[in-house]
Amino acid sequence: MISRRGLLTGAGFGAAGLAVGVGTTALVASSDDGDTVPFDGEHQAGITTRQQDALHFAAFDVVTDDRAELADLLKQWTTMARHMTSGEPSEQPTSEHSVPEDTGEVSDLSAANLTVTVGFGPSLFDDRFGLSAQRPTELQDLPHFPGDQLIPELCGGDLCIQACSDNPQVAIHAVRNLARVGAGVVSVRWAQMGFGHASATTRGQQTPRNLFGFKDGTNNLRSEDNQLVDDHVWVSGTGTWLDGGAFLIPRRIRMLIENWDRQVLTEQESTFGRQKASGAPLGRTDEFDPLPLDEYVGTSGPLIPASAHARLASPEENNGARMLRRAYNFTTGTDGLGHLDAGLFFIAVVNSPETSFIPIQNKLARKDKMNEYVRYESSSIFALPPGVRGADDWWGRTLFEA
Amino acid sequence: MISRRGLLTGAGFGAAGLAVGVGTTALVASSDDGDTVPFDGEHQAGITTRQQDALHFAAFDVVTDDRAELADLLKQWTTMARHMTSGEPSEQPTSEHSVPEDTGEVSDLSAANLTVTVGFGPSLFDDRFGLSAQRPTELQDLPHFPGDQLIPELCGGDLCIQACSDNPQVAIHAVRNLARVGAGVVSVRWAQMGFGHASATTRGQQTPRNLFGFKDGTNNLRSEDNQLVDDHVWVSGTGTWLDGGAFLIPRRIRMLIENWDRQVLTEQESTFGRQKASGAPLGRTDEFDPLPLDEYVGTSGPLIPASAHARLASPEENNGARMLRRAYNFTTGTDGLGHLDAGLFFIAVVNSPETSFIPIQNKLARKDKMNEYVRYESSSIFALPPGVRGADDWWGRTLFEA
Repeated sequence: MISRRGLLTGAGFGAAGLAVGVGTTALVASSDDGDTVPFDGEHQAGITTRQQDALHFAAFDVVTDDRAELADLLKQWTTMARHMTSGEPSEQPTSEHSVPEDTGEVSDLSAANLTVTVGFGPSLFDDRFGLSAQRPTELQDLPHFPGDQLIPELCGGDLCIQACSDNPQVAIHAVRNLARVGAGVVSVRWAQMGFGHASATTRGQQTPRNLFGFKDGTNNLRSEDNQLVDDHVWVSGTGTWLDGGAFLIPRRIRMLIENWDRQVLTEQESTFGRQKASGAPLGRTDEFDPLPLDEYVGTSGPLIPASAHARLASPEENNGARMLRRAYNFTTGTDGLGHLDAGLFFIAVVNSPETSFIPIQNKLARKDKMNEYVRYESSSIFALPPGVRGADDWWGRTLFEA
Repeated sequence: MISRRGLLTGAGFGAAGLAVGVGTTALVASSDDGDTVPFDGEHQAGITTRQQDALHFAAFDVVTDDRAELADLLKQWTTMARHMTSGEPSEQPTSEHSVPEDTGEVSDLSAANLTVTVGFGPSLFDDRFGLSAQRPTELQDLPHFPGDQLIPELCGGDLCIQACSDNPQVAIHAVRNLARVGAGVVSVRWAQMGFGHASATTRGQQTPRNLFGFKDGTNNLRSEDNQLVDDHVWVSGTGTWLDGGAFLIPRRIRMLIENWDRQVLTEQESTFGRQKASGAPLGRTDEFDPLPLDEYVGTSGPLIPASAHARLASPEENNGARMLRRAYNFTTGTDGLGHLDAGLFFIAVVNSPETSFIPIQNKLARKDKMNEYVRYESSSIFALPPGVRGADDWWGRTLFEA
């Protein structure tokens, strides 16, 4: 592997000589260390990729009205993301008398499985950039759900970047450098860090726990489920620029952890419909046992309560609708009232919000017992363009050339 | 190692049987997996301990006036911290019809070198608890430093907890559970997450980088420097309750990274007095080369500029004063003006603020070129009691029994 530091040094950043040449070698990917994720592909990386430990997510407003400037930035972002996900600096250094082309805080670190994923919000398709005819029908602001207490400053955005890595510093570095070169074209609207990935996207991953202490995403789509992923995640066959892409829905869910922590275990378990220690459905012993949705406990009602989260979100009760979840835990200080501010930064990826996320969330918002313990603070939707396919391709090419 | 999950299961949390008994076995420490840090000792852990990757720091207001309640909480916190740093649940489970004794989100995780360190703020020594005669002379609110733009809600506190772990979820779990059992006695005043530890406290650690992209803490005290640590970190020979303790000073330093990122490399390097790639002093080749403070470059002034951070903070220019630093990087969204909010959560530990931190910071506040790129948002001081020495000892015993 060629370390970032070697590259910096080789280009005259420091004093330690020229152990590594510049130029051709600088673009050799460091994929042989086993901790890089391929950037190019039919779909963007960072969706079905094994979920990494840390997230930095940022939404941007476009502050220019110049379509060409925006397209140029997307081309530059594509190049930089390809470099960074290979463990290289975001841009190649030039000289010590110029502004450094990379901010440097990861120059001793590997990529730690960095993925960078870009998305386009509904507002990008207004009349500024001539893209309104290309707006996917389902790309529109989510409806108001009962109980939403959204903070407008934490919602929306013309563009988004999701950076995931097993090292938080690497994820933050990626967003920061893309924001840096975007000055004058984009402005950061909101941003969110996440840690302790609160869902698993591959079969090999142990199901992690959310800050309610429960395993989260036991029943998630996993990337090995090829047919389910094709059926529920990727847009295909539309003949539009979005084929190969998807819709990404981030929702910041504040957890009222002090209230939760005062509930007895049986109350917590009936809220989820699962056991806390094992993650198994109530009345079962293994985490992955099917939910016994039709079983009753004598005369005291269904084994899995009608208001249990696991029941309400299950494909069986939603006409088979499913979503791929990539949630992260978060904490951001206090609420100013003596409590820790913490929760779940929920991310769903689907190919049809109208047949999956929206009806499921409508049902949850009305019936989920968990609503007593959460507050929805942020809600957005973005269309993810398809993956980049080679060095001449770029994020959004299919849209801008449509 | 006895996993937390085994303990939970064995006590009837779930359905998967009784593979691990409750009672005596529940207190066996899981230190044989190599990722626990001993809790008991002459000094508290988490200071000279190899700096872990993640931080959760919280300051608390005491909301009772009852000295006995406060002492009881400190005893309970001691017991819980001993458990958690051993990789066990914070409290032992009782039954499924009670409120869970641990919030559960780390029950599948190891301790990941968790340390929990407690401190007492100046305000604890007012007239509420009869402790005023025990206030260490140097435990008083820091003076105003030129350029401070402090946010009162992010300053001060009667108590603090510093939890460090290589897994952020474990650090947050520790603070959250201590806050949980403190309801009615303490209230969270402010809290801060940190990642990508921005200093090294042992010789074996590679010097990490801050969000300016520079190695941070090259010249830090390291725990192997026994004499220096004794001379500069631990309070001793005072005959007071604080012997074996220290003063901990957390300062949240917002970095104006957009301004910084527009500076050319030579400007950045002259601000630090060090080279960005290698960390070596200007004009030298190795990170650990001594600072050439007396060298001049022809007629253009000193090689290490008079306003360079490394010069101003050096022991050579501060009568030999030194401090142990345990800084962390942070980011918490945006500033609402289109920029990422990010910076350094600085933590210094010293045995005499008046002869080390305060004069050094006074000098830095007036002369440091880096002030153009930072803003001090939070500033506090806490006295760390000595370490806990065995199961009958507790955090603050020397103070409360003084």
